[in-house]
Amino acid sequence: MRILFIGDVVGRSGRSIVLERLPGLIGDWSLDFVVVNGENAAGGFGITELIYHDLLAAGADAVTLGNHSWDQREALVFIDRAERLVRPVNYPPGTPGRGAALLEARNGARVLVTNAMGRVFMEPLDDPFAAVERELAACPLRDAADAVVVDFHAETTSEKQAMGHFLDGKASLVVGTHTHAPTADHQILPHGTAFQSDVGMTGDYNSVIGMAKDEPLNRFLRRIPGSRFEPAAGPATLCGLAVETDDRTGLAVRVAAVRIGGVLEPAVPAFWS
Amino acid sequence: MRILFIGDVVGRSGRSIVLERLPGLIGDWSLDFVVVNGENAAGGFGITELIYHDLLAAGADAVTLGNHSWDQREALVFIDRAERLVRPVNYPPGTPGRGAALLEARNGARVLVTNAMGRVFMEPLDDPFAAVERELAACPLRDAADAVVVDFHAETTSEKQAMGHFLDGKASLVVGTHTHAPTADHQILPHGTAFQSDVGMTGDYNSVIGMAKDEPLNRFLRRIPGSRFEPAAGPATLCGLAVETDDRTGLAVRVAAVRIGGVLEPAVPAFWS
Amino acid sequence: MRILFIGDVVGRSGRSIVLERLPGLIGDWSLDFVVVNGENAAGGFGITELIYHDLLAAGADAVTLGNHSWDQREALVFIDRAERLVRPVNYPPGTPGRGAALLEARNGARVLVTNAMGRVFMEPLDDPFAAVERELAACPLRDAADAVVVDFHAETTSEKQAMGHFLDGKASLVVGTHTHAPTADHQILPHGTAFQSDVGMTGDYNSVIGMAKDEPLNRFLRRIPGSRFEPAAGPATLCGLAVETDDRTGLAVRVAAVRIGGVLEPAVPAFWS
Amino acid sequence: MRILFIGDVVGRSGRSIVLERLPGLIGDWSLDFVVVNGENAAGGFGITELIYHDLLAAGADAVTLGNHSWDQREALVFIDRAERLVRPVNYPPGTPGRGAALLEARNGARVLVTNAMGRVFMEPLDDPFAAVERELAACPLRDAADAVVVDFHAETTSEKQAMGHFLDGKASLVVGTHTHAPTADHQILPHGTAFQSDVGMTGDYNSVIGMAKDEPLNRFLRRIPGSRFEPAAGPATLCGLAVETDDRTGLAVRVAAVRIGGVLEPAVPAFWS
Ligand SMILES: [Fe+2]
Ligand SMILES: [Fe+2]
Ligand SMILES: [Fe+2]
Ligand SMILES: [Fe+2]
Ligand SMILES: [Fe+2]
Ligand SMILES: [Fe+2]
Ligand SMILES: [Fe+2]
Ligand SMILES: [Fe+2]
Repeated sequence: MRILFIGDVVGRSGRSIVLERLPGLIGDWSLDFVVVNGENAAGGFGITELIYHDLLAAGADAVTLGNHSWDQREALVFIDRAERLVRPVNYPPGTPGRGAALLEARNGARVLVTNAMGRVFMEPLDDPFAAVERELAACPLRDAADAVVVDFHAETTSEKQAMGHFLDGKASLVVGTHTHAPTADHQILPHGTAFQSDVGMTGDYNSVIGMAKDEPLNRFLRRIPGSRFEPAAGPATLCGLAVETDDRTGLAVRVAAVRIGGVLEPAVPAFWS
Repeated sequence: MRILFIGDVVGRSGRSIVLERLPGLIGDWSLDFVVVNGENAAGGFGITELIYHDLLAAGADAVTLGNHSWDQREALVFIDRAERLVRPVNYPPGTPGRGAALLEARNGARVLVTNAMGRVFMEPLDDPFAAVERELAACPLRDAADAVVVDFHAETTSEKQAMGHFLDGKASLVVGTHTHAPTADHQILPHGTAFQSDVGMTGDYNSVIGMAKDEPLNRFLRRIPGSRFEPAAGPATLCGLAVETDDRTGLAVRVAAVRIGGVLEPAVPAFWS
Repeated sequence: MRILFIGDVVGRSGRSIVLERLPGLIGDWSLDFVVVNGENAAGGFGITELIYHDLLAAGADAVTLGNHSWDQREALVFIDRAERLVRPVNYPPGTPGRGAALLEARNGARVLVTNAMGRVFMEPLDDPFAAVERELAACPLRDAADAVVVDFHAETTSEKQAMGHFLDGKASLVVGTHTHAPTADHQILPHGTAFQSDVGMTGDYNSVIGMAKDEPLNRFLRRIPGSRFEPAAGPATLCGLAVETDDRTGLAVRVAAVRIGGVLEPAVPAFWS
Repeated sequence: MRILFIGDVVGRSGRSIVLERLPGLIGDWSLDFVVVNGENAAGGFGITELIYHDLLAAGADAVTLGNHSWDQREALVFIDRAERLVRPVNYPPGTPGRGAALLEARNGARVLVTNAMGRVFMEPLDDPFAAVERELAACPLRDAADAVVVDFHAETTSEKQAMGHFLDGKASLVVGTHTHAPTADHQILPHGTAFQSDVGMTGDYNSVIGMAKDEPLNRFLRRIPGSRFEPAAGPATLCGLAVETDDRTGLAVRVAAVRIGGVLEPAVPAFWS
């Protein structure tokens, strides 16, 4: 089974490349399932229902979120009817939406998608390790799901790598999101889970984490806000992780970085080309 | 001019690959200058004088540090006689050692090496932007240095990318260290500075940031320390950034990721092979 | 019913004043129940079994903890046989010891004592509001307990005041601990719960949070550890909160600060003298 | 010389009690100099020029700020003509306004007022210890100033107590602000400086740090903003520190807490009544 995970889509630049390129990639690479992190899709802050549907229309099978989940307050409402929108599972009980979804892939397979938020240098939430463990226990790989995709939205490498090892052998892939820089440490962990500390954003990399440079620089230098953050408007790099799983075990057999467009060094999975 | 920057060497595993491979790389790639971040070289925590000299003997022209600078307390003493050891420049006045050094490269060129520590999610220090700006003003690229290497030891992508753009055109390369995961966002910024958000560690990537997995996992799950952190003992990946500069401008003309050994996908600069 | 809560006992100086003065106060003020926060009782870091028994012998009916619970590793073991030792309830499931205890007071009343840890600028734990709410639901004031004492070990005023209002009418008293400075904002909240943002430490206030001044100052000025922290050895101030509850409702009718000895302005409850 | 320092004035409730009571206190207590922290005076967030002038008209001789200095953006402009408005001295060079001011007291004495921001759990700024030391070196007590008032706006007790001891003997008073809860640890340090870890806010203490309770509670419980923070509208407690200095040494000879109005236990300096 062929899965593509696309990292935090930032603003118009990020959305454009997804809408333009994803349909072709699905065809070219015979993708079975696509997950897109959409927490920054709306002007860099949150997601709207319109954008959510645009991402689905382009071929996303699931959209995940993060600390920016509710920046567009309409998300608190439409998430309850957005069955493919998955917010961090470790928000308090009663939070709108769902922290995990079992979805059907193009090939008919059942894919569990879950999203959790880290706690180191992030806002205080309940234990993401325990929360994800509960979701995977309720819908175990092979028994109840043919593939399990975990988006761990976290700041530090240590918490993300710990989650990777914690789930090694129980998830098809565990990817980090949130730092907006793709890491080159994608690998298949010893027990068969594909892992990458951070998928990176899908946005303009001539920027500061996807935002036009001036205001972030101003804040670092002067410590006083000068204006609002605006997404950088240059061409985006679509950043993702390509994972091929063994249909029998649900575990990863091949993993490769995807970087298309923009200023970063291009990368595509050689094994699908 | 050919510069190689090698990221945070972690423990014996990290040191071994540097000592084994660096001499050959210097020859094969005709390297003019090599910088190694050594803040985790001694058992994962700090650096000893012996290790410092081992790194020099293997071909390092400069060794940089970070938040672990003083974990081996002998560093507070020997740093004053270690002319190629550069600690973060934004420690308080009176801190032992130096925050910048002008060193001679193999080709006779003058290379300014400076190291600074970020402040977001790090300990409180004085402004790294102002501190680095002062060093570069005192020893400007082209006038007083043929190349300028900046190691920005910081946690967040945003602070590191902001530093890159802040110094764009004034430094030959600005690399991040500290997260221990290499980013795949190496690029030459618009004004000619080579940049990578994080070079990654030189250590065993079947680990949690270079440490044997059990204790980090225990702490995330149980929140109570069980034992000391120990470096992972598996084969290391040497992670680095290869930069070729224009001798006339001191700015970057080529940049490529280096990953040799261990579990990560290999990478070498095609333009030097 | 008369309850005295004594804040974080720091080292020998703090222990001495508790051992010397508490027996007399129990007699003079006809105290029914005494809670002592003991997280810093052993040299400033954690608690030993011996010290725990000394505090009980001096008249403590319960001893609470905090982020320093396990600094003396023996606490992980003896806590399971220390029925009056209460650690933060929001540690992960499986943590040794108990997060709440229903104990008998001198007057035969049943007192629920619970301890929770805040999350703002503290280590990441599960939601203290939900955790304490569960404990109080399982053992409600009036139905199952004649008094309810909540020690909320937290850094910020905002989180502590929020907890006070959250439990207002459901607990006899909610007191903050951890900052080591007594606040003068003790009051009875609108629905009858006695509250104080922080009880303050019981230790030497000619210090930095109970520690001898030199090393804390050294670290603020030089950012490099010079030596270990040692408790300040001067005379301690016993800091506490005196609460009188209505036996019928279990809610507070009188509240006063207690400060005895050392360099702080003395305070005793006028209504008990 | 008689100095009154009034802590963070929060919103209309806080302003009202200052405007109503300060003129009388100045007369009753024969105050020579009054400092008011005004960082939350405008609806809880920042200060306007109008409010600044209202505070002066009520008798403030100086107004200090903190992390909310610029919440009302007009402050970036009017501060340059507001000679008695003092913002944290450790903002970057080039920040509008001043970090210290030498002002004339009612009795003709020269009073140096400075304000600094802590760095623990606050935004990253340059070293407040070094910055305040420079100001006091440029205008030393006795030589160039008859009294020195330091407002250290910081989160943790440890950083504030460290600053107190650091300046002990060099300032007339060092007071903490920012936590919005008055501490009862006011004292004269061994070398003559009056100190209080936090003066507390001047606002409604039936609140969460001066804000109406509902929204802070909502955010702690649900982790999703529901509405804006609004200052609590109940009667305020004016919180302050009263310090009498020796005219010969400029050091403190008497210190007492001031709490007037609202729900807190009242306190006035016995030595002035
Ligand atoms: Fe993001
Ligand atoms: Fe994020
Ligand atoms: Fe490191
Ligand atoms: Fe580091
Ligand atoms: Fe404590
Ligand atoms: Fe504590
Ligand atoms: Fe503040
Ligand atoms: Fe404030």
